[in-house]
Amino acid sequence: MKIIIVGASGTIGKHVVAALKNDHEIITAGSKSGDYQVDISSNESIENFFKQVGKFDALVSASGDAHFGPLNAMKDADFRKGIDSKFMGQINLVLIGQHYINPKGSFTLTSGSLAIDPIAYGSAVTAINAAIDGFVRSAAFELDNGVRINSVAPDVVEDSPAYFPYFPGRIPVKMDKVTQGYVKSVLGNQTGQNYLIVE
Amino acid sequence: MKIIIVGASGTIGKHVVAALKNDHEIITAGSKSGDYQVDISSNESIENFFKQVGKFDALVSASGDAHFGPLNAMKDADFRKGIDSKFMGQINLVLIGQHYINPKGSFTLTSGSLAIDPIAYGSAVTAINAAIDGFVRSAAFELDNGVRINSVAPDVVEDSPAYFPYFPGRIPVKMDKVTQGYVKSVLGNQTGQNYLIVE
Ligand SMILES: NC(=O)c1ccc[n+]([C@@H]2O[C@H](COP(=O)([O-])OP(=O)(O)OC[C@H]3O[C@@H](n4cnc5c(N)ncnc54)[C@H](OP(=O)(O)O)[C@@H]3O)[C@@H](O)[C@H]2O)c1
Ligand SMILES: NC(=O)c1ccc[n+]([C@@H]2O[C@H](COP(=O)([O-])OP(=O)(O)OC[C@H]3O[C@@H](n4cnc5c(N)ncnc54)[C@H](OP(=O)(O)O)[C@@H]3O)[C@@H](O)[C@H]2O)c1
Repeated sequence: MKIIIVGASGTIGKHVVAALKNDHEIITAGSKSGDYQVDISSNESIENFFKQVGKFDALVSASGDAHFGPLNAMKDADFRKGIDSKFMGQINLVLIGQHYINPKGSFTLTSGSLAIDPIAYGSAVTAINAAIDGFVRSAAFELDNGVRINSVAPDVVEDSPAYFPYFPGRIPVKMDKVTQGYVKSVLGNQTGQNYLIVE
Repeated sequence: MKIIIVGASGTIGKHVVAALKNDHEIITAGSKSGDYQVDISSNESIENFFKQVGKFDALVSASGDAHFGPLNAMKDADFRKGIDSKFMGQINLVLIGQHYINPKGSFTLTSGSLAIDPIAYGSAVTAINAAIDGFVRSAAFELDNGVRINSVAPDVVEDSPAYFPYFPGRIPVKMDKVTQGYVKSVLGNQTGQNYLIVE
């Protein structure tokens, strides 16, 4: 399979690349890194990206930022960071990518466990993760030609120790376990699923 | 209690007004109708609105649009309609309104059953409803001074027959049942809840 991995150089993405690269043709992408550059916060950049890459079988996105911060200081502009990047960035990979993907292909997006298990400072991230999970559940019934879509919703991962203080009482997820969520989505046959990855 | 109802003239809003007006001071609002005009898609308008209305005890929002349409023709701009109106419009009522609400006050937002039970053409609405429900679950833990927040997630309502063809097999919800979701949120003591209202 020809598999695009957006965010391939990231904490999560590099493990997904490692897990799939022996058996598949991997196209790595990032805003600065990878075989191709794409800025998921720009529709024009996404459109150009797919034009260059051409037809593909699977797209994994492990990319996108969102704002962490206290609710009582949160402003519209803070919220919009996650909307433009993690939320609409990933949605637009699907809205545009659906016109380039091969029949029976798949999209795998990344949300996060905060969608259903919130933390302090996380209101914008929870909303955005929940939006991604919701989109996946609905879009799965509408994608043409047997194309599938799932999201992976990891808890804080073991390779991101800087986040641990914000996740009291959470057991950081082993990278192998997170990685298998993406493998399950790409190589399995399910669609419309939100894979919650917790220890 | 002094209760603001944004969308008070709407299909749902007018029933909420009727249920609460005998025992409370009701401030009605809409973009064109009501005691005060506020356009929830504009931060400036929301800020001006709260400055005029002053302190309050509860805010109910039964307002906000989003795009319905087939996924294979959906574009970023379609999605953004619901983001600017139903999603960020309601979130901004909270982000700004938290600085005007009285201690132990409450916010009640409207999402919809599509958050968890999707229909054709509804991918953007499902994502946006899920985002609102997610925000509520997380913001509830951060609001200061005992302020509460919940969302009401109605299935298609009996007073909206134009929507029935898009909701095959769904039993339109009686207006009394929908209304009680808002009453429960405003007069009850729960927070962080998504009240799914189905027959
Ligand atoms: N780390 C965790 O504990 C954790 C837990 C749950 C969910 N998540 C989610 O998982 C995803 C990846 O997280 P991560 O920790 O692996 O992130 P990361 O280490 O910061 O890596 C981000 C990756 O995305 C790429 N990227 C950044 N901005 C981009 C843009 N505008 N367009 C295209 N690519 C872009 C980066 O490459 P360039 O530098 O080349 O742009 C990099 O490959 C995020 O959505 C995050 O919210 C992470
Ligand atoms: N009807 C249903 O079956 C159903 C089911 C589930 C969820 N919902 C949700 O419930 C909410 C209300 O639905 P509805 O059917 O009652 O809508 P509606 O009949 O169209 O009424 C909308 C109300 O919101 C106000 N409004 C519209 N745009 C506004 C803006 N930009 N700023 C402030 N106020 C605005 C309108 O007043 P003005 O005309 O003065 O602006 C009106 O009072 C929506 O979020 C909808 O998605 C509806």
